[in-house]
Amino acid sequence: MSTINFTSNEITNMETRKRSAFMNSLSGFKSASLIGTIDDQNNVNLAIFSSVIHLGSNPALIGFVNRPDTVDRHTFENILETNCFTINHINKSIYKQAHQTSARYPKDISEFDATRLTPEFQNNFKAPFVKESHIKYGLEFIEKHELKINGTILVIGKVVEVILPESCLLSDGAIDIEMAETIAISGLDSYHGTKKSPDFLMQNRIKCQ
Amino acid sequence: MSTINFTSNEITNMETRKRSAFMNSLSGFKSASLIGTIDDQNNVNLAIFSSVIHLGSNPALIGFVNRPDTVDRHTFENILETNCFTINHINKSIYKQAHQTSARYPKDISEFDATRLTPEFQNNFKAPFVKESHIKYGLEFIEKHELKINGTILVIGKVVEVILPESCLLSDGAIDIEMAETIAISGLDSYHGTKKSPDFLMQNRIKCQ
Repeated sequence: MSTINFTSNEITNMETRKRSAFMNSLSGFKSASLIGTIDDQNNVNLAIFSSVIHLGSNPALIGFVNRPDTVDRHTFENILETNCFTINHINKSIYKQAHQTSARYPKDISEFDATRLTPEFQNNFKAPFVKESHIKYGLEFIEKHELKINGTILVIGKVVEVILPESCLLSDGAIDIEMAETIAISGLDSYHGTKKSPDFLMQNRIKCQ
Repeated sequence: MSTINFTSNEITNMETRKRSAFMNSLSGFKSASLIGTIDDQNNVNLAIFSSVIHLGSNPALIGFVNRPDTVDRHTFENILETNCFTINHINKSIYKQAHQTSARYPKDISEFDATRLTPEFQNNFKAPFVKESHIKYGLEFIEKHELKINGTILVIGKVVEVILPESCLLSDGAIDIEMAETIAISGLDSYHGTKKSPDFLMQNRIKCQ
């Protein structure tokens, strides 16, 4: 297989859009989520993020990366205002609508309306879930870290409510996110279904018993 | 579809291993990488991470999460010592060996030897790449952030060298990581191949021209 190398200078000198596509592909497959928020005037907001990441199990912590140049500054503003947000897995049936939330809408336009996704309120949790998402969870804002080098912010939440299809919960505690039709993202705009490697998984499940 | 809900207390009260499997599944699909390091005595180290994340394109920044309870404390120690590390995509041919690096080896045992993966040194970069990996990159350590709430550390590097198959570089700058057979991880031990959604991708590529 013929390989190609890029140095630090060559990356710096790439055309802006190409560099963005290149760098966004380099980290590997990414989670595909819609983050739902609400402001103090009850305006709801929905935005796609591919940077949701596991940060701890006890306490149950999940974070996401908020870029300073993101089109969706409302997500972070709303979280600071109301201290809560939801994360909703993107599945095969809604990924086109999910992608469309990255268009630039004014604050008084709900991305739910614009993309025909349905806000859903559960168990008195203030921020909206996405009805069409199969695996979703509500978080309380806990902590933020600003990267010195580029102003990017890691936003951290504690999971306070999880909703998932009963059939996707496995006996060892894992969630079968493939069965729930959750998809993966690569780069800026590639969406991927997945196919589990059953041999290796079985070997591990046996080992764990 | 019948759903099941978990509250914050129910998550806290789960048995430790089940909670870990549950929480590790909840964030969605994760990148699958081997991180290669070297210490000042030229001992090489290799460890699997599912927390590699894109943090910026200019400068070219990628981070990973180092858990305080990780079996592989050597990775972080070595990065602090030598200021560099490599990230190597895990592909279909090496995921079993990659998983095996998470076993607990003493510092003088190389996980390369133990798992029969091959260290590869390129262009005077000090840390070892994985020969069997198709997409790989070298990073210079830049910054770290410790989460107040659980001691987890976000380690940030600047990409200084990228190696990939020439055939996987697309005209818009993106890398076709699926063509390179890069896999995705869910939970603690599920490995997944992917299948791109071609209709949506094409629509976007056309829009970008």
